[in-house]
Amino acid sequence: MENIKLPDFSSVEAAAERLAGQAVVTPLLENRSLNERAGGRVFLKAETLQRTGSFKFRGAYNRISQIPAANRAGGVVAYSSGNHAQGVAAAAALLGMPAAIVMPADAPKLKVANTRGYGAEVHFYDRFGDSREVVGEALAAERGATLVPPYDDPDIIAGQGTCGLEIARQADAAGVRLDKVLICCGGGGLTAGCALALTALQPQAEIYCVEPAGFDDTFRSLAAGARLRNDPAARSICDALLSPTPGEITFAINKRLLTGGLVVADGEVKAAMRYVAETLKLVVEPGGAVALTAIHAGKIDVRGQNVAVVLSGGNVDPEFLAQILTDRESR
Amino acid sequence: MENIKLPDFSSVEAAAERLAGQAVVTPLLENRSLNERAGGRVFLKAETLQRTGSFKFRGAYNRISQIPAANRAGGVVAYSSGNHAQGVAAAAALLGMPAAIVMPADAPKLKVANTRGYGAEVHFYDRFGDSREVVGEALAAERGATLVPPYDDPDIIAGQGTCGLEIARQADAAGVRLDKVLICCGGGGLTAGCALALTALQPQAEIYCVEPAGFDDTFRSLAAGARLRNDPAARSICDALLSPTPGEITFAINKRLLTGGLVVADGEVKAAMRYVAETLKLVVEPGGAVALTAIHAGKIDVRGQNVAVVLSGGNVDPEFLAQILTDRESR
Repeated sequence: MENIKLPDFSSVEAAAERLAGQAVVTPLLENRSLNERAGGRVFLKAETLQRTGSFKFRGAYNRISQIPAANRAGGVVAYSSGNHAQGVAAAAALLGMPAAIVMPADAPKLKVANTRGYGAEVHFYDRFGDSREVVGEALAAERGATLVPPYDDPDIIAGQGTCGLEIARQADAAGVRLDKVLICCGGGGLTAGCALALTALQPQAEIYCVEPAGFDDTFRSLAAGARLRNDPAARSICDALLSPTPGEITFAINKRLLTGGLVVADGEVKAAMRYVAETLKLVVEPGGAVALTAIHAGKIDVRGQNVAVVLSGGNVDPEFLAQILTDRESR
Repeated sequence: MENIKLPDFSSVEAAAERLAGQAVVTPLLENRSLNERAGGRVFLKAETLQRTGSFKFRGAYNRISQIPAANRAGGVVAYSSGNHAQGVAAAAALLGMPAAIVMPADAPKLKVANTRGYGAEVHFYDRFGDSREVVGEALAAERGATLVPPYDDPDIIAGQGTCGLEIARQADAAGVRLDKVLICCGGGGLTAGCALALTALQPQAEIYCVEPAGFDDTFRSLAAGARLRNDPAARSICDALLSPTPGEITFAINKRLLTGGLVVADGEVKAAMRYVAETLKLVVEPGGAVALTAIHAGKIDVRGQNVAVVLSGGNVDPEFLAQILTDRESR
């Protein structure tokens, strides 16, 4: 950590310049039925509509576009449960670089197919047995490739932060002063990046990370003041958020800027996904739904408030979405 | 017809003023995967995100908000397959008027539930046996209510036209000159209204209506130069577009302003709905998908062009959407 310069608001602003014309400025949506249900105004940042179907393109492009020309021939390597995989694959293809992605064998089929669709080579590992870091680093060394980490990297964090920058600017353009912002949290890159932008532009807003039960490492680490690990036996449908522990850099930022964390159960996530499809007419994946789930399941009081929520991704297998839409328990 | 003043562009502009702050200015979305597939730029007008989940709120509010104070106590009556029902119910509730809606017994459950959710009384009729006009007019007479027709009314047409007004302005703000605009067509109100705005603001754009097979009355009427009827035995999953014949007023406008019509099959609509959920991350109902289906199924060449497409509504039963998501035939 001593050698790493933490990203700050100016890093996010610089990332936004690199991403201009490449990433989608996703809409900040509002829905009256949701507002009535929540008793406040809820603004949905629809990163489901981002290039590659999640916010991950932002960080990947910000990182990969800064690889020096001399290092580009070896390409990039990344390890990812699927959304970072797609972001890296798409960004590398845009920049004319080969990409190899190490993905868990149980990743959603749609994520694997899309990653290959962007031209990347996919290598599988066992999510609960192998170390993806070790597999990824060996592959990168073998190829002379640049490793693009999923979250614990200043450029990745700054890139994801452009999502928060847009939220702050869009709220500002609508004359809205945000009281709270809810952001899903795996390794903490999106949360940390958004927090850098939001504390600069909407400093009154309280920022909360939201995690699935069993993967509430950031919530517990914030309370403990030190990075804690999840039980390796934990499981969740939120495949995008299954990181074992907060990142070193991300946690250094999050412990300074976050108000706290919220935790939601898988069953609550399913109910929220169904609500999102039925009422908001959007497709969201489990990990992308956790922040809204916190409101839908009543985990936080937002009555009379302006709250922004990131819908971080929509890459869910159609068969799994179909199951949730017909599951009586999720009604 | 002699006594009816046809709506024009100024009627649409006046409707937009009435709707300001009430209707959602829905986003005009663009997706790179879709562009690559189509070989051109496709702009999606997401009326799925409109209040009540379809464009119908626009016309309903424009019409009902002009009912004189002296006539408001009797409330409103409408006949509708479901989207106009919700639009009328929500607009009436906003304006403090009672609403009674005549709906087909086979209307999607979600549409019936939502219509009741907005506080309206629902009366059922047999879509293929009774005349909804007769049922609706009798009910209106009995109550001293104002009948709010689904499409063949100058104020309804002008209200729906605000969707086209937004498309033209949003394309203009993005520096885009539209080559084609594809709009779904039942009775023709949305098509006619949008055509009034688009021919004024993007006069170079060719405007096409898109209909489900078996309900291609406007397509055939445009070719014949006179209003033709559909075979009463025809059936389609596009419950929002099952009108028997073009409206008198809508057809007078459409025959003057439309370039032509396109027809899509139910199987093609299902495949497009699956594509919209899987790739665009949006929920769209069958009738709301027909315009995009024309591109998805290759019914029209849009290579190298800028094309706007209306996704007119998203009120589909979750169980039906689930069936489409898992149906092997729609892949």
